Amino acid sequence: MAGVTGGDVTGGDGSDAGPALVVDHVDEAAKRAGGNLKWGLDGPGVLPAWIAEHDLGPPPVVRDALHRIADLPDVGYSRRANELGAAFADWAELRHGWRPDPELVVPTTDVLQGIWAVVAAFSEPGEGVITTPPVYPYFHDVAPSLRRRSLECPLRHDADGWRLDLDDLASLLEREPAARILLLCSPHNPTGHLYSRDELQAMVELTRRHDVILVSDEIHFDLVYPGARHYPTLALPDAAAHTVALYSAGKAFAISGLRAAIAVFASGDLHDRFNEAMPAHLLGGVSRAGVEAAITAWQHGAAWLDDLVALLDRHRRTVVDVLATELPAVGCHLPASTFLAWLDLSALDLGPDPAAKLVEAAGVRTSEGHEFGTGGAGHVRLNFGTSTALLEEILDRLVGALRS
Amino acid sequence: MAGVTGGDVTGGDGSDAGPALVVDHVDEAAKRAGGNLKWGLDGPGVLPAWIAEHDLGPPPVVRDALHRIADLPDVGYSRRANELGAAFADWAELRHGWRPDPELVVPTTDVLQGIWAVVAAFSEPGEGVITTPPVYPYFHDVAPSLRRRSLECPLRHDADGWRLDLDDLASLLEREPAARILLLCSPHNPTGHLYSRDELQAMVELTRRHDVILVSDEIHFDLVYPGARHYPTLALPDAAAHTVALYSAGKAFAISGLRAAIAVFASGDLHDRFNEAMPAHLLGGVSRAGVEAAITAWQHGAAWLDDLVALLDRHRRTVVDVLATELPAVGCHLPASTFLAWLDLSALDLGPDPAAKLVEAAGVRTSEGHEFGTGGAGHVRLNFGTSTALLEEILDRLVGALRS
Repeated sequence: MAGVTGGDVTGGDGSDAGPALVVDHVDEAAKRAGGNLKWGLDGPGVLPAWIAEHDLGPPPVVRDALHRIADLPDVGYSRRANELGAAFADWAELRHGWRPDPELVVPTTDVLQGIWAVVAAFSEPGEGVITTPPVYPYFHDVAPSLRRRSLECPLRHDADGWRLDLDDLASLLEREPAARILLLCSPHNPTGHLYSRDELQAMVELTRRHDVILVSDEIHFDLVYPGARHYPTLALPDAAAHTVALYSAGKAFAISGLRAAIAVFASGDLHDRFNEAMPAHLLGGVSRAGVEAAITAWQHGAAWLDDLVALLDRHRRTVVDVLATELPAVGCHLPASTFLAWLDLSALDLGPDPAAKLVEAAGVRTSEGHEFGTGGAGHVRLNFGTSTALLEEILDRLVGALRS
Repeated sequence: MAGVTGGDVTGGDGSDAGPALVVDHVDEAAKRAGGNLKWGLDGPGVLPAWIAEHDLGPPPVVRDALHRIADLPDVGYSRRANELGAAFADWAELRHGWRPDPELVVPTTDVLQGIWAVVAAFSEPGEGVITTPPVYPYFHDVAPSLRRRSLECPLRHDADGWRLDLDDLASLLEREPAARILLLCSPHNPTGHLYSRDELQAMVELTRRHDVILVSDEIHFDLVYPGARHYPTLALPDAAAHTVALYSAGKAFAISGLRAAIAVFASGDLHDRFNEAMPAHLLGGVSRAGVEAAITAWQHGAAWLDDLVALLDRHRRTVVDVLATELPAVGCHLPASTFLAWLDLSALDLGPDPAAKLVEAAGVRTSEGHEFGTGGAGHVRLNFGTSTALLEEILDRLVGALRS
């Protein structure tokens, strides 16, 4: 783990030859002029802590790659997207001790496309798609938009945080023989929960037994804090034949808008069935800019990412500490992953739309909890993926508004 | 039409404030190092005249836009893709005297995705997709990959060139009540044929009468030579309710690899039916880089494009003149559109793969005619979208190899 200095610029190991590390500074004016939705929804009086993208990237090496794309003699058709698989395999081996087969990696424009495509490929209209709310809001749109049935296995909450109850899942699968997909968010958005290896293995077994495809959105896989570990679902015993995992470099490296992601298989047979059902041309070509940014991030972004995770580790502790000290009525567990904190504001009685209240009262935009489905009411999701200075300002505003 | 000078640099109107115009020069080493498939398939002994992308772009204003993307504070989620519709509407009005409704423009990653999505949305497995061979090879993959039936209405060839016989189309539609899609390539690749207004209107009527959706790939719409005119199918009377057209800035501005295109509707009802059948998330997000490049090209690329078309106009005449003079056994009509010439080599008896023969004998890679389907055997497609110097070298090589 590279060192993080306390100042504005995180300077790394002091060697000029070292990689450029994370700059703990956000240029608000540039952000507001940049055209991102996160910074564009509200006027300058409101600080954005909503959409799940952080403010601290991309790394200089990725910017350089994008400038090289701009300088190409022309940006014609290439086969560069075919190299995403090898770059991802090297990265997954380096970071997670798991080496997927590059030949079983399918480029997609984003992780949501991967989810939609897998659900469309492996289920029929009327069959069931299980989600685990509270969960990333777009998950709730998958089933209705594809004429599948929405089924829910809500997470349970106790003093230790949020978790999936395996008995709940087992009885849902017994009760609903038309369930065909379990759509997992791992690491879990919005709670930052990391499923244990045993939990994941049990899900693999249950889905296998019930002829259900396990679709695992692992987009936050690279944002895991010290002491915790992300287990790639595909690497587990018995997962290969019925599991698909979705990945992207977008969350860790702040390049989601360039649109490059992957759907990863561990079974040649499942991969072939997917390609048969979902022709590559229907998925569409992936932008050379997104492909180049992702490959560059995975090939050269490790030290920068270590530095980012160290900074975000401080941020998550700051969030939990400030809330515990200043706003003890707000519930919040230390997230093990993601740059998202899931705040229970129900004791504060802020009405049905607490995030809207916080925009008015605190000048901070968080994500509205009820959009995450069952269990989300009374909550907001706070994005702490910003500079230390801005996070402190966000927390000051929240504390000022909610203490009164 | 901006002036074109004879030298390496086409300098425009002489004013320093004028837009940067087309540079009639190709840096072969940079091309070969750039990673494009077109320049990467063969070694330095072979000149590429195959894949349908030209060597002369993108315009400087598009490069500048790409550098701005690289310099963004981060490339997060944006709604910029929603502005493709308005930029295209302005461009279509300026260039083609037709103003589509920006609200009925759907972003896609590329034109092929648009075709696949429209066919998937508006037909069922087992129903028929009509193509008009010889035609762009990927058209032949649409029906089998989506489990539709391939139906053909081959173009006819006479002394004036290639054309669609409307009686052929009418009797095919009578004969095949399960035909559900007519997949048109307009302007036509590989022949460079432009359908007349009357021809297009007749196709609109025939398809309407037989409850067939008219899918018009108009990707070459901006590459039309003096004296000819491209008629946007959607602008014709009675087309709106059953026509979808696909466009991209990629062909004209040499940015296909960035992946941004559009599917355009002229009927709110058809547009809604498409969106219902084909959820936006299944199509996936379009890269900010591609979106920015396309919008920039459509907003600021007109003078540069005029200049490009003037250069390519000279090139098409050079191709036809050189072949008529030096290789009279080769058949070739002056293309009215595209930077593609469709050469009939059948009199030369080059065997079943004439393009492969030309790689060996002439060091020039063209596209193999039989890949374009019925009517393509014995032909090759020659891409003249390169510098004057390289085109002359390509023609010298072909003449040298084929005259002997």
